[in-house]
Amino acid sequence: MSASLRHRLDVDLGSRSYPIYIGEGLLDDPAYLHPHIGGRQVMIVSNETVAPLYLDRLLANLQGYDCVSHLLPDGERFKDLAHWQTILDALLGARFDRGSTVIALGGGVVGDMAGFAAACYQRGVGFIQVPTTLLSQVDSSVGGKTGVNHPLGKNMIGAFYQPQCVIADTEVLNTLDDRQLSAGLAEVIKYGLIRDAGFFGWLEHNMSALLNRDADALAYAISESCKCKAEIVAADEHEGGVRALLNLGHTFGHAIETGVGYGEWLHGEAVGAGMVLAGDLSRRLGMMSRDALTSAVALIERARLPIHPPAGMGPERFLELMAIDKKVRNGRLNLILLEDIGRGVIRSDFDPEVLKECLTTACRE
Amino acid sequence: MSASLRHRLDVDLGSRSYPIYIGEGLLDDPAYLHPHIGGRQVMIVSNETVAPLYLDRLLANLQGYDCVSHLLPDGERFKDLAHWQTILDALLGARFDRGSTVIALGGGVVGDMAGFAAACYQRGVGFIQVPTTLLSQVDSSVGGKTGVNHPLGKNMIGAFYQPQCVIADTEVLNTLDDRQLSAGLAEVIKYGLIRDAGFFGWLEHNMSALLNRDADALAYAISESCKCKAEIVAADEHEGGVRALLNLGHTFGHAIETGVGYGEWLHGEAVGAGMVLAGDLSRRLGMMSRDALTSAVALIERARLPIHPPAGMGPERFLELMAIDKKVRNGRLNLILLEDIGRGVIRSDFDPEVLKECLTTACRE
Repeated sequence: MSASLRHRLDVDLGSRSYPIYIGEGLLDDPAYLHPHIGGRQVMIVSNETVAPLYLDRLLANLQGYDCVSHLLPDGERFKDLAHWQTILDALLGARFDRGSTVIALGGGVVGDMAGFAAACYQRGVGFIQVPTTLLSQVDSSVGGKTGVNHPLGKNMIGAFYQPQCVIADTEVLNTLDDRQLSAGLAEVIKYGLIRDAGFFGWLEHNMSALLNRDADALAYAISESCKCKAEIVAADEHEGGVRALLNLGHTFGHAIETGVGYGEWLHGEAVGAGMVLAGDLSRRLGMMSRDALTSAVALIERARLPIHPPAGMGPERFLELMAIDKKVRNGRLNLILLEDIGRGVIRSDFDPEVLKECLTTACRE
Repeated sequence: MSASLRHRLDVDLGSRSYPIYIGEGLLDDPAYLHPHIGGRQVMIVSNETVAPLYLDRLLANLQGYDCVSHLLPDGERFKDLAHWQTILDALLGARFDRGSTVIALGGGVVGDMAGFAAACYQRGVGFIQVPTTLLSQVDSSVGGKTGVNHPLGKNMIGAFYQPQCVIADTEVLNTLDDRQLSAGLAEVIKYGLIRDAGFFGWLEHNMSALLNRDADALAYAISESCKCKAEIVAADEHEGGVRALLNLGHTFGHAIETGVGYGEWLHGEAVGAGMVLAGDLSRRLGMMSRDALTSAVALIERARLPIHPPAGMGPERFLELMAIDKKVRNGRLNLILLEDIGRGVIRSDFDPEVLKECLTTACRE
């Protein structure tokens, strides 16, 4: 098998800068993995779905290291402190020292939990992301957000912790199920909506190719998404400002995920419906034209994502869950809204009655 | 009550620099606390012993803020993930947002747990240390090490997370019991041993005054200790090098704490006996003179600290527990040893047989 690197991007964070490698077959090529492993002890954290597909290949690429694997159950509903602790128990049980490296092999849940464990084990050990879903390749593996959910809110406990590198092997997307592919496309569309109308246009022309898993189209979409995210993260690592734009649709989406129970809706599905709500609110506030909203909703729908909130979730439940979101500061809810395709803005000065109206209408449909 | 600031030191960490205030009555003076609180929401984390003594005074100094208190049981044996999680549950239950501040009011255990909770809540909120023991005033509240214990090892799970400020009110030491005072003196003596023979000499002349809680002597000892720690932390925040010197006696000490069960020996007591072991090993390796060792042991003993390992703990148990210490890298144990009073060094190239001999002799005494 010969690996083919298509893109290398760098997240510019001074002494904590790191590369993102994008291409086919990178999983098997030591050139991308080995330079980023400091010591000899390596723990691969994966889950029961991904491990049977790719764990042996990754292990074959790690000969000469002391490797241990730790498997988590598959799903967002296991992204909690109890399962996070099993990773720490395993690291201690294997007597891993402070020079060891944790590799996350899986989607966003695996990456978030393994990264948070790497951040806290002995106050921080090496960490490498090998994302295996489209969503984690374009979003969650880049930027250093790690953490777990709490019954009272999503991603409420965690750390900013940057990996040594991200290895996005596009071949693994061939085994992804259609629902997961669509969930990843939600985050891809997000980048177009918040700051790149040109990329949004490209997505409109290439949505069929992406859904058909055209290798060129996927590699381009991943690279553009990572480029956008890397630039934003380099400008604002700890989300004091512009990084918040990446949360378009996420405050609504997190409320959906918590409301229906973690794992019922995929994160990307909730973000899809959440972006429709953010767009609709923007239009109601007179910020965005009806045409632009129609284009946004149409693309989200073509990506086979939900465009309505889950049945049975009322506006009150939305407001209650959104009130505890991380985007709340001193009692004011900050939302990412749209002025147009490609122009996201952070706003907290909107009329709460319009938000209520938007949710009431959406929940009735 | 009028506050009297005796010393202000600054820990120089670029954008994360912070002041240490040392003096009498600082607890009641808004001038030290308020400028370091960002938002309106403040959680005071304390324990069942300290809260009845000082919580009301601190609350009186926080009028106008939305304050919540959270009390932990008192003792090192409760410094675990389960109790840490109760702080996070309380923060979420009170709907605290990302602009909130956590204040640790207590000793090292409270500071370590509250700091680790502040580090992880919403990926990091404000944090202020109000240390109430000598040990936490001279050591654990400065430098940003936070964390909890694991059944397999001490401080194995945690984060480097710097506070906004440290407020060391020396008046609170008047309510400290003698055993806690001695435990704090262990860390004070440590600074003399690792890099300040002059301060060690001062301690020899002033040990009685310190044990009698002479206010001037205590303020000077705290200030010199914090100065030493602040310089070392500024030079090496994440313990890649020189910061390891601060661990003199700690690898032996952690083995004692884990071996006898967390909380049986105070941390400072274990460090006291651990420094004697480190000194004895240094002498056996021909690094330190017998006279220097005698002076070191005499001062530790005058501080009313144990100079022998706990009865019933054999050399094998020591070696087993030391093998999992954070100071192990690629299978080699790094120890802090002494070339003389005031000259600590980091060594991993010692003969393990001499370590075994040292432990065997000490455990027999």
